[in-house]
Amino acid sequence: MSGTIQNIAVGLSYGLAALNQGDRLVPWTFERRTLRPTDITVKIQFCGICHSDLHAIRGSSRFPLVPGHEIVGEVTAIGTDVTTFRIGDAVAVGTIVDSCGHCSSCQRQLEQYCLEGVTTTYDGIDRQDGSITRGGYSNEYVVDAQFAYHIPVGLDPASVAPLLCAGVTTWSPLRHWDVGGKTVGIVGLGGLGHMAVKFAHALGAYVVLFSTSPAKLADAKALGADEAILSTDEAQMANQASRFDFILDTVSSRHPLNSYLRSLKLDGTLCCLGIPANLDFSPVFLTMGRRRLTSSGVGGTLETQAMLDFCSQHHISADVEIISATDVEDGFERLDRGEVRYRLVIDMSTLDVPVGTIALS
Amino acid sequence: MSGTIQNIAVGLSYGLAALNQGDRLVPWTFERRTLRPTDITVKIQFCGICHSDLHAIRGSSRFPLVPGHEIVGEVTAIGTDVTTFRIGDAVAVGTIVDSCGHCSSCQRQLEQYCLEGVTTTYDGIDRQDGSITRGGYSNEYVVDAQFAYHIPVGLDPASVAPLLCAGVTTWSPLRHWDVGGKTVGIVGLGGLGHMAVKFAHALGAYVVLFSTSPAKLADAKALGADEAILSTDEAQMANQASRFDFILDTVSSRHPLNSYLRSLKLDGTLCCLGIPANLDFSPVFLTMGRRRLTSSGVGGTLETQAMLDFCSQHHISADVEIISATDVEDGFERLDRGEVRYRLVIDMSTLDVPVGTIALS
Repeated sequence: MSGTIQNIAVGLSYGLAALNQGDRLVPWTFERRTLRPTDITVKIQFCGICHSDLHAIRGSSRFPLVPGHEIVGEVTAIGTDVTTFRIGDAVAVGTIVDSCGHCSSCQRQLEQYCLEGVTTTYDGIDRQDGSITRGGYSNEYVVDAQFAYHIPVGLDPASVAPLLCAGVTTWSPLRHWDVGGKTVGIVGLGGLGHMAVKFAHALGAYVVLFSTSPAKLADAKALGADEAILSTDEAQMANQASRFDFILDTVSSRHPLNSYLRSLKLDGTLCCLGIPANLDFSPVFLTMGRRRLTSSGVGGTLETQAMLDFCSQHHISADVEIISATDVEDGFERLDRGEVRYRLVIDMSTLDVPVGTIALS
Repeated sequence: MSGTIQNIAVGLSYGLAALNQGDRLVPWTFERRTLRPTDITVKIQFCGICHSDLHAIRGSSRFPLVPGHEIVGEVTAIGTDVTTFRIGDAVAVGTIVDSCGHCSSCQRQLEQYCLEGVTTTYDGIDRQDGSITRGGYSNEYVVDAQFAYHIPVGLDPASVAPLLCAGVTTWSPLRHWDVGGKTVGIVGLGGLGHMAVKFAHALGAYVVLFSTSPAKLADAKALGADEAILSTDEAQMANQASRFDFILDTVSSRHPLNSYLRSLKLDGTLCCLGIPANLDFSPVFLTMGRRRLTSSGVGGTLETQAMLDFCSQHHISADVEIISATDVEDGFERLDRGEVRYRLVIDMSTLDVPVGTIALS
């Protein structure tokens, strides 16, 4: 922890923000809400860099924007009604920090599908006071304990951070479509894809990784794939016809889907996690084989905690590279170029403490 | 049966054919295959006019083309190995007349999803002799008994004809997605849509029909819909959000799907029976609610017979208008203009018997 401490300003947080659309991140000081009875305060140790952080910075978000929704830290304060956490607990926060709580999705703890819409960890609007939520590229986070997760023992904190988005985003569909014992394709080996390979393997699927990058094929096998196929090889792709029960496509940009649809068995499912403006496929490949095209959004509180527990039992975490707060912009550039293997995580102890605030000890 | 009989030419059939792409149909004489041991010969009484007949005539089919795959008639001859039919039996033939018989789909009698591809009733290639199949706009059909169906007692033959395509095409997904007791949307009230409403209602679903045509809303209720909604009414469409378990879209042309996706509950399914070059929807509506987009192709032999039996038990058949063979081109024009309610069926006894052939008695 560095920086000059001149005085104490209670409630003042600090982090990295894009002050305007597309801006480089700069140090920024802001206020977090006062602890509510059901809240906990998290001193942030690590925050993963997710591709959606980049989208948010470049997109039509509310600025200033503090990104970050793969948060790992330690509980430093608890509200009067909190019974599930104690000060000092290892804790994680993901992409969602609130939801309506009463709709049919929320009642099943599938809060990501809240019919009234979720409150996101950053660039969201607090349901009680209307303030803008600020993300985990910062020193601390205040969150309702219901949307915080216990980090099981035996997991390395930095490698846990990406589980909160990249992890649960792949875990949720792999569990929902119950891939154990099935032949499963994973498309793309990035932050999401490398977690999908690990999870699908640990869940007992026969895992085939598809990548456009020859360099990643060996990696895929090391991560747990039974086969790795170069998706630009048309002959190999033709051989995949009617082979898969389920394919999880982790590629964020628009790309041709016909060869993946064709690779599904009768009643097979292609789940595309990327959300481009439209998808590139011919409907006839749905008709032939009664195939299903679907998508999935992160995960709810129940499945997020279940995933963390599974990770602990199966010794699974993300392959991460820890960077300092001053290297975030460089990290973004590497992410853009597809050079990250497989997730960057910011060490939040490297954040400069701005003048006028107090560093958490 | 009219026309001049001058001599007997065994094996010669006659019907209506498009001699070249886009041509008007004209009388045409052609040879059918000799009866094989597992074949039956069907004297055709009625043949439904399906939208795909028009597509085939205007598309890149093999010409001359004899359309027609909603065939109803009487067995006039049986092969030496046929045990399931007798001469005189009421019989129906649908869109598929052969498949590989050994793939995983065929073994489940879901022949429409044959991994080697089906042999279609017309414009198909016979798997044994390589000849081109000619459809039901003709006096007779020769078919393997496995792909012929018993017409249960109590059903009117002309109204049964459309069940073989429009019927089973809607029956199959409604059964597969098990709509009984669920809230089901049907999009479009044409040949397929009117059958879908009848089936969904009889299967115990709560049925909501969507149409762009105000004139069809009352019809929909008369056919069994619990509600009928004008899909161009944006306010009404917005009220459908997260309401449906399953929506069966029977519209053949490209049209906006977002409002239907939005109308699905969590994990709901939109099944589009039309196969345009691409579909008009935003992937984010799949992500929100983990919704599924799928399609379905006609039906296999098991479900086709099951549908006919269900129709007999529930007194269901198509709403048809019987036309003579000379009025087929006029029928096509009405179909193009959307003026058919709800299926045209050709009375094949009105076919002229060409010189040089013998009329079946």
